[in-house]
Amino acid sequence: MNINKPLLYSFVLGSSIVSATDLHAETDKPNIIFFLVDDMGWQDTSLPFWTEKTPYNMIYETPNMERLAERGMMFTQAYANSISSPSRCSLLTGCNSARHCVTNWTLHKDQSTDGNNEKIIPPEWNVNGICQTSGIPRTFRATSFVQILKDNGYHTIHCGKAHFGAIDTPGENPHHFGFEVNIAGHAAGGLASYLGEQNFGNKTDGTESSPFAVPGLEEYWGKDIFVTEALTVEAKKALDKAKKLGQPFFLYMSHYAVHVPYDKDMRYYGKYRNEKGLTENEAAYASLIEGMDKSLGDIMDWLEENDMADNTIVIFMSDNGGLAAESWSRDGELHTQNAPLSSGKGSAREGGIREPMIVAWPGMVEAGSKCDSYVIIEDFFPTILEMAGITDYETVQAIDGISMVPLLNGSGDTSKGRALFWNCPNMWGNTGPGIGPTCTVREGDWKLIYYYDTGKKELFNITEDIGEKNNLAETCPEKTKKLSKKLGRYLRNIGAQRPTVKETGKPAPWPDQIRQYQLYFLQNLHNGEMLFFYGRRGVVCFGIEFLHGHE
Amino acid sequence: MNINKPLLYSFVLGSSIVSATDLHAETDKPNIIFFLVDDMGWQDTSLPFWTEKTPYNMIYETPNMERLAERGMMFTQAYANSISSPSRCSLLTGCNSARHCVTNWTLHKDQSTDGNNEKIIPPEWNVNGICQTSGIPRTFRATSFVQILKDNGYHTIHCGKAHFGAIDTPGENPHHFGFEVNIAGHAAGGLASYLGEQNFGNKTDGTESSPFAVPGLEEYWGKDIFVTEALTVEAKKALDKAKKLGQPFFLYMSHYAVHVPYDKDMRYYGKYRNEKGLTENEAAYASLIEGMDKSLGDIMDWLEENDMADNTIVIFMSDNGGLAAESWSRDGELHTQNAPLSSGKGSAREGGIREPMIVAWPGMVEAGSKCDSYVIIEDFFPTILEMAGITDYETVQAIDGISMVPLLNGSGDTSKGRALFWNCPNMWGNTGPGIGPTCTVREGDWKLIYYYDTGKKELFNITEDIGEKNNLAETCPEKTKKLSKKLGRYLRNIGAQRPTVKETGKPAPWPDQIRQYQLYFLQNLHNGEMLFFYGRRGVVCFGIEFLHGHE
Repeated sequence: MNINKPLLYSFVLGSSIVSATDLHAETDKPNIIFFLVDDMGWQDTSLPFWTEKTPYNMIYETPNMERLAERGMMFTQAYANSISSPSRCSLLTGCNSARHCVTNWTLHKDQSTDGNNEKIIPPEWNVNGICQTSGIPRTFRATSFVQILKDNGYHTIHCGKAHFGAIDTPGENPHHFGFEVNIAGHAAGGLASYLGEQNFGNKTDGTESSPFAVPGLEEYWGKDIFVTEALTVEAKKALDKAKKLGQPFFLYMSHYAVHVPYDKDMRYYGKYRNEKGLTENEAAYASLIEGMDKSLGDIMDWLEENDMADNTIVIFMSDNGGLAAESWSRDGELHTQNAPLSSGKGSAREGGIREPMIVAWPGMVEAGSKCDSYVIIEDFFPTILEMAGITDYETVQAIDGISMVPLLNGSGDTSKGRALFWNCPNMWGNTGPGIGPTCTVREGDWKLIYYYDTGKKELFNITEDIGEKNNLAETCPEKTKKLSKKLGRYLRNIGAQRPTVKETGKPAPWPDQIRQYQLYFLQNLHNGEMLFFYGRRGVVCFGIEFLHGHE
Repeated sequence: MNINKPLLYSFVLGSSIVSATDLHAETDKPNIIFFLVDDMGWQDTSLPFWTEKTPYNMIYETPNMERLAERGMMFTQAYANSISSPSRCSLLTGCNSARHCVTNWTLHKDQSTDGNNEKIIPPEWNVNGICQTSGIPRTFRATSFVQILKDNGYHTIHCGKAHFGAIDTPGENPHHFGFEVNIAGHAAGGLASYLGEQNFGNKTDGTESSPFAVPGLEEYWGKDIFVTEALTVEAKKALDKAKKLGQPFFLYMSHYAVHVPYDKDMRYYGKYRNEKGLTENEAAYASLIEGMDKSLGDIMDWLEENDMADNTIVIFMSDNGGLAAESWSRDGELHTQNAPLSSGKGSAREGGIREPMIVAWPGMVEAGSKCDSYVIIEDFFPTILEMAGITDYETVQAIDGISMVPLLNGSGDTSKGRALFWNCPNMWGNTGPGIGPTCTVREGDWKLIYYYDTGKKELFNITEDIGEKNNLAETCPEKTKKLSKKLGRYLRNIGAQRPTVKETGKPAPWPDQIRQYQLYFLQNLHNGEMLFFYGRRGVVCFGIEFLHGHE
């Protein structure tokens, strides 16, 4: 026999903290897939991002990129940095490379990957990449947008290449940035092998594997499977799980493709080699691209099969331009592999930094549309958070990126009055147009590249000269001066780094601290400093400065 | 030739956000290891936690627990919940089981593991466990202390059993609670096999593995290794990595041992079977214990070899009492396996909730000391954060735990004036003393257990009657009444759940809504409600209440 007092109700705390509002808000949030390709050039697709269809657009077959573009908006002037780590660090932190100072690629702790330069020594850049923890030397500390997504109820999945920080630093591990799932991501920015038959580069004979051996795909070792496919299968498994969890998800689908080595994806290689008559190397490259595109299709299929296509944003992006320089070189003339763009990966020229980008956002972005306004990779940070409806968040770093949402929903043009900046005071290792220690500004039609080592400046009208063939630095001195000043001020204000001049041991000049001058008078003063008068184009611009020359 | 203006210095932003203060603070933080054993009883060790050495203390050999106790403080009255999920959820959230309502063990999504009870139906408890995300049904949302450690610069490692949430819910994955590394943790609260030879229960013939198959240890499949050892090897690898990362670390070393099945750890089995003459079952159990102790020793060795012993706090704990009931039963008389304590796992009696606990905190805790004040598992939440020097943190849940730091450094006694509470309105499945739908309060020397299904109350003086042999509920009615009221009020205030009485369909009474009464007068009113007068022990205590009886 039990006695109750039914008029007594308990005061409920605790489990009631989860309010109905919370429930509603979270289930309405869109899923977001960021599909990132490695080293994919602007023309490595059958989808024309230029005003006309190029020979490369004819060669490559990417039906799923076309399919995605039909659902969303293509961006014809989407920029990244010219190297992987700087781009990925900008993406995750929302910071410009000039701020995060991860300006070359990272791998080993405390070790620079800079090549040699006769004239300059690269600065003490953040060779350990980024992390969320303070107190790690030569590392940029920042809050990742993935952490913020996670903290706001998103299930966060990393699949593929990470390359956020050096081995044995916190940044080596995607889990340290708010990713709840990590499939095959680690410190390395490349892969030892695409082939399951080769265990993706992992050695089983007791000898040490390359740091580029792909981790975490043991299940596929010894099997006839390409890493692109293995990652896709694993990503779909993770999506199956995400669907069950009942949270909105963020999938960072970051392919190792189409980075070197140019292994052959035999599902597609024959077509390019035999039917299209490409060289072995080029056919292999084309097979990497189509394999990547198939992955995109598989993921879009998954969304459709699971009735999630209408509530899932899909973003397609590459991290830098296609490789077009001497190391692991593609076939054909060097520096032409991104034509009509000049140069490629590692270069400040368009071929190094302009990316194929698509955003499909059902209900928000006009299907089959195109945007010619320029954007840059750090813009994804505020964009994705705005897409997720997250407006109230804190970061330890300042955010340089600007949300692209006005471009996406047609409410405004964020490129108006905006300049874009790049800083790469490093030696990536290869040579070629725009490759070297540079800083760069793009404003409106114009782009200025300044070379820290030679003092050279290049000024291009990108709208009229997409191939950057005509350097107008001498022809348009006022534009050169104005952009030099803008660039120099930006870099100084943001805390950018610059190389040191070997000869003097002093910092290389900022772009607005050097002029195309002619010396008229030079007087040795003391301590190797000199008084001088100089002029330019017949106009005497005299003054007194300190000259650090051949001390 | 380069021209500089050496008097111009740039204003550095960005990378300077990491201040020297930050650096200093973080490197000074202690490492913390929480060494948690599964289903280990209070007497399953050679280290005596009682006032005298028991026969069990003579049988089992745990030299490394003794070694740890020599370095730290033993707690003789450390409590947990009587079942794994409630304990682990209290640990991670700092909440009492009455608040988080994960009051039985979790496994499958939306499915209760409750057994049958003739009289009551368990409440709609949080069968999906805990998670950090809102909007997940039948889940308690909370911020885990591990997340807070991670957010404050700790590298966070999970190794072993998780059991925080059901399969296909966010809580199934330790990564969802702020753990950056997860070794072998998932939804299940047990293991299919300890044996590498049996792939820890994973099937390779294409058939589906048990949900209890241990994940993530593929490297050891088919090898002659016990899971306890495999986890230890992996934990040490994770510690090697943690050392390199340059962050303070938190290692949650959560053994699957000594949960059923009682596989034989052959490194130790022979000694117990042959030399000590235990039965096969008991010798296997003893081998699980010594294997676990060896792991503790290996980790202590690692700390010493890596000069980290002086800056690392080691906490030893079990999640509930040793198994002493009929399922998978140990040898010997049932319910005696934790003697001198009564009953075992699943029971509100001391055998189900009193745990072997040690804290070694170099420089803060007196070596070789002992604390007889009572503490409870949710106390670790504020304790560990205080240990880590983290005072400014936010949680979505209220914290019930109280920091043990005053006990540890001898500055105060947190048990004074404090009552401890348990709520388990569930059917764990076995039977025995204290097993069933109960709620419990401990205050000072006294403990009251109330059975929701029968209305029975048990009152014990724990200090004088550690074996809970003498139920004083009738003898000490005032104490019973006082504790009933305290318990009932606590449960109602915190939002606790209670079973439903099958016969009436109404909630079972709270402990202070039922009395050992004698009816003097009963009058049927209407709607099955009744007016009555009752008394107790000859004293007439009359009044009008609503009686829900045999409607």
